[in-house]
Amino acid sequence: MSGWIAVAGLGPGSATLITPEVSAALARASDLVGYAPYVARVDPREDLVRHSSDNRVELDRAALALDLAARGRRVAIVSSGDPGVFAMAAALFEALEAGPASWRTLDIQILPGITAMLAASARAGAPLGHDFCAINLSDNLKPWSVIERRLRLAAAADFAMAFYNPRSRSRPDGFARTLAILRESCGPERPILFARAVTTPEEQLHVTTLGTARADMADMRTMVIVGSSQTRIIERPIGPILYTPRSIPA
Amino acid sequence: MSGWIAVAGLGPGSATLITPEVSAALARASDLVGYAPYVARVDPREDLVRHSSDNRVELDRAALALDLAARGRRVAIVSSGDPGVFAMAAALFEALEAGPASWRTLDIQILPGITAMLAASARAGAPLGHDFCAINLSDNLKPWSVIERRLRLAAAADFAMAFYNPRSRSRPDGFARTLAILRESCGPERPILFARAVTTPEEQLHVTTLGTARADMADMRTMVIVGSSQTRIIERPIGPILYTPRSIPA
Repeated sequence: MSGWIAVAGLGPGSATLITPEVSAALARASDLVGYAPYVARVDPREDLVRHSSDNRVELDRAALALDLAARGRRVAIVSSGDPGVFAMAAALFEALEAGPASWRTLDIQILPGITAMLAASARAGAPLGHDFCAINLSDNLKPWSVIERRLRLAAAADFAMAFYNPRSRSRPDGFARTLAILRESCGPERPILFARAVTTPEEQLHVTTLGTARADMADMRTMVIVGSSQTRIIERPIGPILYTPRSIPA
Repeated sequence: MSGWIAVAGLGPGSATLITPEVSAALARASDLVGYAPYVARVDPREDLVRHSSDNRVELDRAALALDLAARGRRVAIVSSGDPGVFAMAAALFEALEAGPASWRTLDIQILPGITAMLAASARAGAPLGHDFCAINLSDNLKPWSVIERRLRLAAAADFAMAFYNPRSRSRPDGFARTLAILRESCGPERPILFARAVTTPEEQLHVTTLGTARADMADMRTMVIVGSSQTRIIERPIGPILYTPRSIPA
Protein backbone atom coordinates (compact mmCIF):
# COMPACT_ATOMS: atom_id res chain seq x y z
CA MET A 1 0.00 0.00 0.00
CA SER A 2 1.87 3.01 -1.26
CA GLY A 3 0.38 6.46 -0.87
CA TRP A 4 1.19 9.60 -2.77
CA ILE A 5 0.28 13.27 -3.10
CA ALA A 6 -0.20 15.11 -6.38
CA VAL A 7 -0.70 18.85 -6.06
CA ALA A 8 -2.65 19.51 -9.22
CA GLY A 9 -3.31 22.78 -11.01
CA LEU A 10 -6.82 22.98 -12.50
CA GLY A 11 -6.01 26.05 -14.59
CA PRO A 12 -8.06 29.25 -14.64
CA GLY A 13 -11.50 27.77 -15.32
CA SER A 14 -12.02 26.09 -18.67
CA ALA A 15 -11.76 22.29 -18.68
CA THR A 16 -9.90 22.56 -22.00
CA LEU A 17 -6.96 24.07 -20.08
CA ILE A 18 -6.49 21.13 -17.68
CA THR A 19 -3.41 19.15 -18.70
CA PRO A 20 -3.66 15.41 -19.42
CA GLU A 21 -1.15 14.89 -16.58
CA VAL A 22 -3.57 16.45 -14.09
CA SER A 23 -6.57 14.57 -15.49
CA ALA A 24 -4.67 11.28 -15.13
CA ALA A 25 -3.77 12.04 -11.51
CA LEU A 26 -7.37 12.95 -10.68
CA ALA A 27 -8.53 9.67 -12.25
CA ARG A 28 -6.10 7.65 -10.07
CA ALA A 29 -6.69 9.53 -6.80
CA SER A 30 -8.57 8.01 -3.86
CA ASP A 31 -8.91 11.35 -2.05
CA LEU A 32 -9.46 14.91 -3.19
CA VAL A 33 -8.35 17.75 -0.90
CA GLY A 34 -8.88 21.46 -1.49
CA TYR A 35 -10.78 24.68 -1.12
CA ALA A 36 -14.43 23.82 -1.75
CA PRO A 37 -14.91 25.72 -5.06
CA TYR A 38 -11.89 23.93 -6.56
CA VAL A 39 -12.97 20.49 -5.31
CA ALA A 40 -16.36 21.21 -6.92
CA ARG A 41 -14.63 21.56 -10.30
CA VAL A 42 -13.69 17.85 -10.29
CA ASP A 43 -16.37 15.40 -11.45
CA PRO A 44 -17.57 13.10 -8.67
CA ARG A 45 -16.66 9.42 -8.76
CA GLU A 46 -18.02 6.73 -6.46
CA ASP A 47 -14.60 5.72 -5.10
CA LEU A 48 -13.26 9.27 -4.70
CA VAL A 49 -13.45 10.73 -1.18
CA ARG A 50 -13.84 14.50 -1.20
CA HIS A 51 -12.34 16.65 1.57
CA SER A 52 -13.55 20.18 0.89
CA SER A 53 -12.36 22.97 3.14
CA ASP A 54 -12.86 26.64 3.73
CA ASN A 55 -10.52 29.35 2.49
CA ARG A 56 -7.43 30.31 4.59
CA VAL A 57 -6.89 26.90 6.16
CA GLU A 58 -4.12 25.89 3.81
CA LEU A 59 -1.88 24.40 6.49
CA ASP A 60 -4.67 22.22 7.93
CA ARG A 61 -5.49 21.06 4.42
CA ALA A 62 -1.82 20.27 3.74
CA ALA A 63 -1.43 18.31 7.00
CA LEU A 64 -4.59 16.32 6.21
CA ALA A 65 -3.19 15.42 2.79
CA LEU A 66 0.18 14.38 4.24
CA ASP A 67 -1.51 12.25 6.89
CA LEU A 68 -3.75 10.57 4.32
CA ALA A 69 -0.78 9.79 2.05
CA ALA A 70 1.21 8.40 5.01
CA ARG A 71 -1.69 6.00 5.55
CA GLY A 72 -1.44 4.79 1.95
CA ARG A 73 -4.07 6.98 0.29
CA ARG A 74 -3.60 8.48 -3.19
CA VAL A 75 -4.25 12.15 -2.59
CA ALA A 76 -4.86 14.89 -5.15
CA ILE A 77 -4.69 18.41 -3.68
CA VAL A 78 -6.41 20.71 -6.14
CA SER A 79 -5.55 24.35 -6.74
CA SER A 80 -6.88 26.83 -9.24
CA GLY A 81 -4.34 27.93 -11.83
CA ASP A 82 -0.85 26.63 -11.10
CA PRO A 83 -0.28 25.13 -7.64
CA GLY A 84 3.19 26.70 -7.44
CA VAL A 85 1.99 30.31 -7.86
CA PHE A 86 0.38 31.76 -4.69
CA ALA A 87 -1.30 28.41 -4.08
CA MET A 88 -1.13 25.06 -2.32
CA ALA A 89 2.37 23.78 -3.21
CA ALA A 90 4.16 26.19 -0.85
CA ALA A 91 1.60 25.50 1.91
CA LEU A 92 2.21 21.76 1.54
CA PHE A 93 5.96 22.20 1.92
CA GLU A 94 5.51 24.45 4.96
CA ALA A 95 3.49 21.66 6.60
CA LEU A 96 5.99 19.03 5.46
CA GLU A 97 8.93 20.93 6.92
CA ALA A 98 7.16 21.36 10.28
CA GLY A 99 5.91 17.77 10.44
CA PRO A 100 7.32 14.34 11.34
CA ALA A 101 10.45 13.07 9.60
CA SER A 102 8.46 10.15 8.17
CA TRP A 103 6.66 12.57 5.85
CA ARG A 104 9.97 13.25 4.08
CA THR A 105 9.86 9.91 2.29
CA LEU A 106 6.37 10.43 0.86
CA ASP A 107 5.94 10.50 -2.92
CA ILE A 108 4.97 14.12 -3.69
CA GLN A 109 4.53 15.52 -7.18
CA ILE A 110 3.61 19.07 -8.15
CA LEU A 111 1.64 19.05 -11.41
CA PRO A 112 1.76 22.46 -13.08
CA GLY A 113 -1.28 24.22 -14.50
CA ILE A 114 -2.10 27.32 -16.53
CA THR A 115 -1.74 30.15 -14.03
CA ALA A 116 -4.20 33.06 -14.15
CA MET A 117 -1.72 35.67 -15.39
CA LEU A 118 -0.82 33.61 -18.46
CA ALA A 119 -4.46 32.90 -19.29
CA ALA A 120 -5.31 36.60 -18.87
CA SER A 121 -2.30 37.62 -20.93
CA ALA A 122 -3.32 35.20 -23.72
CA ARG A 123 -6.88 36.52 -23.82
CA ALA A 124 -5.70 40.14 -24.09
CA GLY A 125 -2.73 39.63 -26.41
CA ALA A 126 0.78 39.32 -24.97
CA PRO A 127 1.32 41.95 -22.24
CA LEU A 128 3.81 39.61 -20.51
CA GLY A 129 5.82 39.13 -23.70
CA HIS A 130 8.91 40.71 -22.14
CA ASP A 131 10.42 40.74 -18.62
CA PHE A 132 7.72 40.83 -15.94
CA CYS A 133 6.95 40.21 -12.30
CA ALA A 134 4.08 38.61 -10.39
CA ILE A 135 2.97 40.13 -7.07
CA ASN A 136 0.30 38.90 -4.68
CA LEU A 137 -1.48 42.04 -3.45
CA SER A 138 -3.01 40.32 -0.43
CA ASP A 139 -1.43 41.55 2.79
CA ASN A 140 -2.85 38.67 4.82
CA LEU A 141 0.57 37.00 4.89
CA LYS A 142 3.00 39.87 4.44
CA PRO A 143 3.23 43.46 5.63
CA TRP A 144 1.86 46.14 3.32
CA SER A 145 5.26 47.88 3.46
CA VAL A 146 6.79 44.93 1.56
CA ILE A 147 4.14 45.23 -1.16
CA GLU A 148 4.69 48.96 -1.50
CA ARG A 149 8.46 48.57 -1.73
CA ARG A 150 8.11 45.87 -4.38
CA LEU A 151 5.71 48.00 -6.42
CA ARG A 152 8.14 50.92 -6.52
CA LEU A 153 11.15 48.73 -7.39
CA ALA A 154 9.19 46.81 -10.04
CA ALA A 155 8.18 50.12 -11.63
CA ALA A 156 11.81 51.30 -11.51
CA ALA A 157 12.88 48.04 -13.19
CA ASP A 158 10.24 48.70 -15.88
CA PHE A 159 8.75 45.23 -15.54
CA ALA A 160 5.29 44.46 -16.81
CA MET A 161 3.44 43.48 -13.62
CA ALA A 162 0.84 40.83 -12.95
CA PHE A 163 -1.20 41.25 -9.77
CA TYR A 164 -2.93 38.34 -8.03
CA ASN A 165 -5.66 38.88 -5.40
CA PRO A 166 -5.95 42.62 -6.04
CA ARG A 167 -8.94 43.19 -3.81
CA SER A 168 -11.29 41.53 -1.33
CA ARG A 169 -14.00 42.64 1.06
CA SER A 170 -11.57 42.31 3.98
CA ARG A 171 -8.94 44.43 2.21
CA PRO A 172 -10.85 47.21 0.45
CA ASP A 173 -8.05 49.84 0.46
CA GLY A 174 -4.84 48.18 -0.70
CA PHE A 175 -5.67 48.14 -4.37
CA ALA A 176 -6.51 51.86 -4.43
CA ARG A 177 -3.11 52.52 -2.84
CA THR A 178 -1.50 50.22 -5.41
CA LEU A 179 -3.06 52.19 -8.26
CA ALA A 180 -1.92 55.48 -6.71
CA ILE A 181 1.68 54.25 -6.40
CA LEU A 182 1.67 52.97 -9.98
CA ARG A 183 0.18 56.20 -11.36
CA GLU A 184 2.94 58.12 -9.59
CA SER A 185 5.70 55.73 -10.78
CA CYS A 186 4.52 54.88 -14.30
CA GLY A 187 2.37 57.85 -15.34
CA PRO A 188 -1.32 58.03 -16.28
CA GLU A 189 -0.89 56.76 -19.86
CA ARG A 190 0.39 53.31 -18.87
CA PRO A 191 -1.95 50.51 -20.07
CA ILE A 192 -3.67 48.31 -17.51
CA LEU A 193 -5.74 45.17 -18.06
CA PHE A 194 -8.57 43.99 -15.82
CA ALA A 195 -9.26 40.35 -16.68
CA ARG A 196 -12.09 38.84 -14.68
CA ALA A 197 -12.93 35.13 -14.53
CA VAL A 198 -10.89 34.37 -17.64
CA THR A 199 -11.86 31.33 -19.70
CA THR A 200 -15.18 30.98 -17.82
CA PRO A 201 -18.65 32.00 -19.07
CA GLU A 202 -18.35 35.13 -16.86
CA GLU A 203 -15.13 36.32 -18.51
CA GLN A 204 -14.76 40.09 -18.80
CA LEU A 205 -11.74 41.90 -20.26
CA HIS A 206 -11.16 45.61 -19.90
CA VAL A 207 -8.11 47.45 -21.23
CA THR A 208 -7.65 51.02 -20.04
CA THR A 209 -4.92 53.28 -18.61
CA LEU A 210 -3.70 53.95 -15.09
CA GLY A 211 -5.16 57.46 -15.42
CA THR A 212 -8.70 56.13 -15.76
CA ALA A 213 -8.39 52.90 -13.73
CA ARG A 214 -10.44 52.71 -10.53
CA ALA A 215 -10.07 50.28 -7.65
CA ASP A 216 -13.63 49.02 -8.03
CA MET A 217 -12.78 47.66 -11.49
CA ALA A 218 -11.23 44.65 -9.70
CA ASP A 219 -12.53 42.01 -7.31
CA MET A 220 -11.12 38.69 -6.08
CA ARG A 221 -11.83 37.02 -9.43
CA THR A 222 -9.85 39.67 -11.33
CA MET A 223 -6.30 39.38 -12.58
CA VAL A 224 -4.70 42.78 -13.12
CA ILE A 225 -1.80 43.31 -15.51
CA VAL A 226 0.03 46.63 -15.89
CA GLY A 227 2.28 47.07 -18.90
CA SER A 228 5.91 48.15 -19.00
CA SER A 229 6.93 51.43 -20.66
CA GLN A 230 7.12 49.46 -23.95
CA THR A 231 3.64 47.91 -23.81
CA ARG A 232 1.41 48.86 -26.74
CA ILE A 233 -2.24 48.74 -27.68
CA ILE A 234 -3.23 47.77 -31.23
CA GLU A 235 -6.69 49.06 -32.05
CA ARG A 236 -8.80 46.69 -34.14
CA PRO A 237 -12.46 46.65 -35.29
CA ILE A 238 -12.80 43.38 -33.30
CA GLY A 239 -11.26 44.69 -30.05
CA PRO A 240 -7.87 45.92 -28.88
CA ILE A 241 -4.71 43.85 -28.47
CA LEU A 242 -2.39 44.60 -25.56
CA TYR A 243 1.18 43.43 -26.04
CA THR A 244 4.77 44.04 -25.02
CA PRO A 245 7.31 43.79 -27.86
CA ARG A 246 10.30 41.48 -27.56
CA SER A 247 12.87 44.24 -28.04
CA ILE A 248 14.07 47.25 -26.13
CA PRO A 249 15.93 49.76 -28.32
CA ALA A 250 19.53 50.40 -27.25
CA MET B 1 -13.40 30.31 -46.46
CA SER B 2 -12.50 31.74 -43.08
CA GLY B 3 -8.92 31.59 -41.92
CA TRP B 4 -7.55 31.86 -38.40
CA ILE B 5 -4.34 31.83 -36.38
CA ALA B 6 -3.86 29.98 -33.10
CA VAL B 7 -0.56 30.64 -31.35
CA ALA B 8 -0.23 27.43 -29.39
CA GLY B 9 2.02 26.65 -26.44
CA LEU B 10 3.39 23.10 -26.53
CA GLY B 11 4.62 23.23 -22.94
CA PRO B 12 8.12 22.34 -21.78
CA GLY B 13 8.45 18.93 -23.42
CA SER B 14 6.18 16.17 -22.15
CA ALA B 15 3.07 15.50 -24.24
CA THR B 16 1.13 15.08 -20.98
CA LEU B 17 1.53 18.85 -20.42
CA ILE B 18 -0.12 19.92 -23.69
CA THR B 19 -3.59 21.27 -22.98
CA PRO B 20 -6.66 19.80 -24.70
CA GLU B 21 -7.29 23.28 -26.15
CA VAL B 22 -3.93 23.19 -27.95
CA SER B 23 -4.42 19.59 -29.11
CA ALA B 24 -7.81 20.51 -30.59
CA ALA B 25 -6.34 23.50 -32.45
CA LEU B 26 -3.51 21.38 -33.86
CA ALA B 27 -6.06 18.81 -35.03
CA ARG B 28 -8.06 21.49 -36.89
CA ALA B 29 -5.10 23.36 -38.41
CA SER B 30 -4.27 23.23 -42.10
CA ASP B 31 -0.81 24.79 -41.63
CA LEU B 32 1.83 24.53 -38.95
CA VAL B 33 4.33 27.39 -38.57
CA GLY B 34 7.26 27.49 -36.17
CA TYR B 35 10.88 26.97 -35.28
CA ALA B 36 11.82 23.55 -36.66
CA PRO B 37 12.34 21.69 -33.32
CA TYR B 38 8.86 22.79 -32.15
CA VAL B 39 7.17 21.87 -35.45
CA ALA B 40 8.85 18.46 -35.11
CA ARG B 41 7.02 17.92 -31.80
CA VAL B 42 3.65 17.81 -33.62
CA ASP B 43 2.65 14.47 -35.17
CA PRO B 44 2.47 14.60 -38.98
CA ARG B 45 -0.88 14.41 -40.69
CA GLU B 46 -1.45 14.05 -44.44
CA ASP B 47 -3.48 17.27 -44.75
CA LEU B 48 -1.22 19.37 -42.50
CA VAL B 49 1.30 21.61 -44.29
CA ARG B 50 4.43 22.17 -42.22
CA HIS B 51 6.38 25.45 -42.46
CA SER B 52 9.50 24.93 -40.36
CA SER B 53 11.90 27.80 -39.96
CA ASP B 54 15.24 28.61 -38.45
CA ASN B 55 15.72 30.35 -35.11
CA ARG B 56 15.70 34.19 -34.94
CA VAL B 57 13.34 34.73 -37.88
CA GLU B 58 10.26 35.29 -35.72
CA LEU B 59 8.96 38.26 -37.72
CA ASP B 60 9.20 36.40 -41.05
CA ARG B 61 7.42 33.48 -39.47
CA ALA B 62 4.69 35.76 -38.09
CA ALA B 63 4.17 37.48 -41.45
CA LEU B 64 3.92 34.10 -43.18
CA ALA B 65 1.25 33.00 -40.69
CA LEU B 66 -0.72 36.24 -41.13
CA ASP B 67 -0.56 35.95 -44.90
CA LEU B 68 -1.71 32.32 -44.83
CA ALA B 69 -4.63 33.15 -42.52
CA ALA B 70 -5.62 36.09 -44.76
CA ARG B 71 -5.83 33.59 -47.61
CA GLY B 72 -8.23 31.44 -45.58
CA ARG B 73 -5.83 28.90 -44.07
CA ARG B 74 -6.17 27.60 -40.50
CA VAL B 75 -2.73 28.30 -39.06
CA ALA B 76 -1.21 27.00 -35.83
CA ILE B 77 1.97 28.79 -34.81
CA VAL B 78 3.75 26.55 -32.32
CA SER B 79 5.94 27.73 -29.46
CA SER B 80 7.63 25.82 -26.70
CA GLY B 81 6.25 26.56 -23.23
CA ASP B 82 3.74 29.41 -23.23
CA PRO B 83 3.55 31.52 -26.42
CA GLY B 84 3.11 34.70 -24.35
CA VAL B 85 6.39 34.37 -22.42
CA PHE B 86 9.46 35.29 -24.48
CA ALA B 87 7.93 33.53 -27.47
CA MET B 88 5.87 33.90 -30.64
CA ALA B 89 2.79 35.83 -29.45
CA ALA B 90 4.62 39.15 -29.11
CA ALA B 91 6.38 38.59 -32.45
CA LEU B 92 3.03 37.98 -34.12
CA PHE B 93 1.61 41.23 -32.77
CA GLU B 94 4.72 43.17 -33.86
CA ALA B 95 4.16 41.88 -37.41
CA LEU B 96 0.42 42.58 -37.18
CA GLU B 97 0.97 46.16 -36.05
CA ALA B 98 3.43 46.83 -38.90
CA GLY B 99 1.31 45.10 -41.55
CA PRO B 100 -1.74 45.93 -43.70
CA ALA B 101 -4.97 47.07 -42.01
CA SER B 102 -6.77 44.00 -43.40
CA TRP B 103 -4.81 41.81 -40.96
CA ARG B 104 -6.61 43.54 -38.08
CA THR B 105 -9.82 41.64 -38.75
CA LEU B 106 -8.18 38.21 -38.67
CA ASP B 107 -9.29 35.71 -36.03
CA ILE B 108 -6.25 35.34 -33.75
CA GLN B 109 -6.22 33.30 -30.55
CA ILE B 110 -3.33 32.85 -28.12
CA LEU B 111 -3.54 29.42 -26.49
CA PRO B 112 -1.55 29.34 -23.25
CA GLY B 113 0.83 26.56 -22.32
CA ILE B 114 2.92 25.46 -19.35
CA THR B 115 5.87 27.83 -19.39
CA ALA B 116 9.34 26.52 -18.51
CA MET B 117 9.67 28.35 -15.20
CA LEU B 118 6.48 26.81 -13.83
CA ALA B 119 7.46 23.31 -14.97
CA ALA B 120 10.93 23.74 -13.44
CA SER B 121 9.45 25.14 -10.25
CA ALA B 122 7.06 22.18 -9.98
CA ARG B 123 9.84 19.63 -10.46
CA ALA B 124 11.98 21.25 -7.74
CA GLY B 125 9.22 22.11 -5.24
CA ALA B 126 7.74 25.60 -5.18
CA PRO B 127 10.53 28.22 -5.46
CA LEU B 128 8.09 30.63 -7.15
CA GLY B 129 5.52 30.25 -4.36
CA HIS B 130 5.78 33.94 -3.46
CA ASP B 131 6.32 37.16 -5.45
CA PHE B 132 8.73 36.61 -8.33
CA CYS B 133 9.98 37.98 -11.64
CA ALA B 134 10.89 36.48 -15.00
CA ILE B 135 13.82 37.88 -16.96
CA ASN B 136 15.10 36.88 -20.39
CA LEU B 137 18.92 36.93 -20.13
CA SER B 138 19.43 37.09 -23.87
CA ASP B 139 20.79 40.45 -24.92
CA ASN B 140 20.00 39.87 -28.60
CA LEU B 141 16.99 42.19 -28.36
CA LYS B 142 17.85 44.50 -25.46
CA PRO B 143 20.97 46.21 -24.17
CA TRP B 144 22.93 44.43 -21.46
CA SER B 145 22.61 47.56 -19.29
CA VAL B 146 18.82 46.97 -19.05
CA ILE B 147 19.40 43.41 -17.87
CA GLU B 148 21.94 44.50 -15.27
CA ARG B 149 19.64 47.22 -13.95
CA ARG B 150 16.73 44.79 -13.69
CA LEU B 151 18.85 42.22 -11.86
CA ARG B 152 19.86 44.75 -9.21
CA LEU B 153 16.32 46.07 -8.74
CA ALA B 154 14.83 42.56 -8.63
CA ALA B 155 17.33 41.63 -5.93
CA ALA B 156 16.47 44.81 -4.00
CA ALA B 157 12.77 43.92 -4.27
CA ASP B 158 13.65 40.46 -2.90
CA PHE B 159 11.81 38.68 -5.71
CA ALA B 160 12.48 35.07 -6.50
CA MET B 161 13.82 35.23 -10.07
CA ALA B 162 13.32 32.97 -13.06
CA PHE B 163 15.83 33.31 -15.88
CA TYR B 164 15.07 32.30 -19.45
CA ASN B 165 17.82 31.81 -22.04
CA PRO B 166 20.67 32.09 -19.53
CA ARG B 167 23.43 31.16 -21.93
CA SER B 168 24.23 30.39 -25.55
CA ARG B 169 27.32 29.92 -27.66
CA SER B 170 26.92 33.42 -29.09
CA ARG B 171 26.62 34.95 -25.60
CA PRO B 172 29.11 33.09 -23.41
CA ASP B 173 29.75 35.88 -20.87
CA GLY B 174 26.41 37.34 -19.80
CA PHE B 175 25.44 34.55 -17.45
CA ALA B 176 28.75 34.71 -15.56
CA ARG B 177 28.15 38.45 -15.10
CA THR B 178 24.59 37.69 -13.96
CA LEU B 179 25.85 35.28 -11.32
CA ALA B 180 28.44 37.81 -10.13
CA ILE B 181 25.77 40.54 -9.74
CA LEU B 182 23.45 38.16 -7.87
CA ARG B 183 26.23 36.95 -5.56
CA GLU B 184 26.98 40.57 -4.72
CA SER B 185 23.29 41.49 -4.21
CA CYS B 186 21.94 38.33 -2.57
CA GLY B 187 24.97 36.75 -0.90
CA PRO B 188 26.61 33.35 -1.46
CA GLU B 189 24.10 31.31 0.57
CA ARG B 190 21.11 32.11 -1.66
CA PRO B 191 19.67 28.93 -3.28
CA ILE B 192 19.76 28.54 -7.04
CA LEU B 193 18.14 25.87 -9.22
CA PHE B 194 19.45 24.69 -12.58
CA ALA B 195 16.65 22.82 -14.31
CA ARG B 196 17.63 21.41 -17.69
CA ALA B 197 15.21 19.95 -20.25
CA VAL B 198 12.46 19.59 -17.68
CA THR B 199 9.81 16.92 -18.31
CA THR B 200 11.91 15.34 -21.10
CA PRO B 201 14.00 12.14 -20.85
CA GLU B 202 17.11 14.37 -20.53
CA GLU B 203 15.81 16.22 -17.48
CA GLN B 204 18.46 17.22 -14.93
CA LEU B 205 17.81 19.17 -11.73
CA HIS B 206 20.56 20.69 -9.62
CA VAL B 207 19.95 22.73 -6.47
CA THR B 208 22.95 24.61 -5.11
CA THR B 209 23.87 28.09 -3.84
CA LEU B 210 25.08 31.24 -5.55
CA GLY B 211 28.42 30.72 -3.83
CA THR B 212 29.05 27.45 -5.67
CA ALA B 213 27.11 28.10 -8.89
CA ARG B 214 29.16 28.31 -12.08
CA ALA B 215 28.13 29.69 -15.45
CA ASP B 216 28.81 26.38 -17.20
CA MET B 217 26.03 24.75 -15.15
CA ALA B 218 23.56 26.31 -17.63
CA ASP B 219 23.04 26.05 -21.37
CA MET B 220 20.18 27.08 -23.69
CA ARG B 221 18.01 24.20 -22.47
CA THR B 222 18.38 25.28 -18.83
CA MET B 223 15.90 27.26 -16.78
CA VAL B 224 17.57 29.00 -13.83
CA ILE B 225 15.64 30.00 -10.71
CA VAL B 226 17.17 31.99 -7.86
CA GLY B 227 15.29 32.10 -4.57
CA SER B 228 14.27 35.14 -2.53
CA SER B 229 15.70 35.72 0.94
CA GLN B 230 12.86 33.53 2.27
CA THR B 231 13.45 30.53 0.00
CA ARG B 232 14.25 27.31 1.86
CA ILE B 233 15.64 23.88 1.12
CA ILE B 234 14.07 20.84 2.79
CA GLU B 235 16.54 17.96 2.85
CA ARG B 236 14.99 14.54 2.22
CA PRO B 237 16.37 11.01 1.70
CA ILE B 238 14.71 11.14 -1.75
CA GLY B 239 16.16 14.51 -2.80
CA PRO B 240 15.83 18.13 -1.71
CA ILE B 241 12.77 20.35 -2.03
CA LEU B 242 13.25 24.02 -2.87
CA TYR B 243 10.36 26.27 -1.87
CA THR B 244 9.40 29.81 -0.95
CA PRO B 245 6.88 30.10 1.91
CA ARG B 246 3.68 32.07 1.45
CA SER B 247 4.37 34.45 4.35
CA ILE B 248 6.82 37.19 5.13
CA PRO B 249 7.04 37.94 8.86
CA ALA B 250 6.12 41.51 9.77
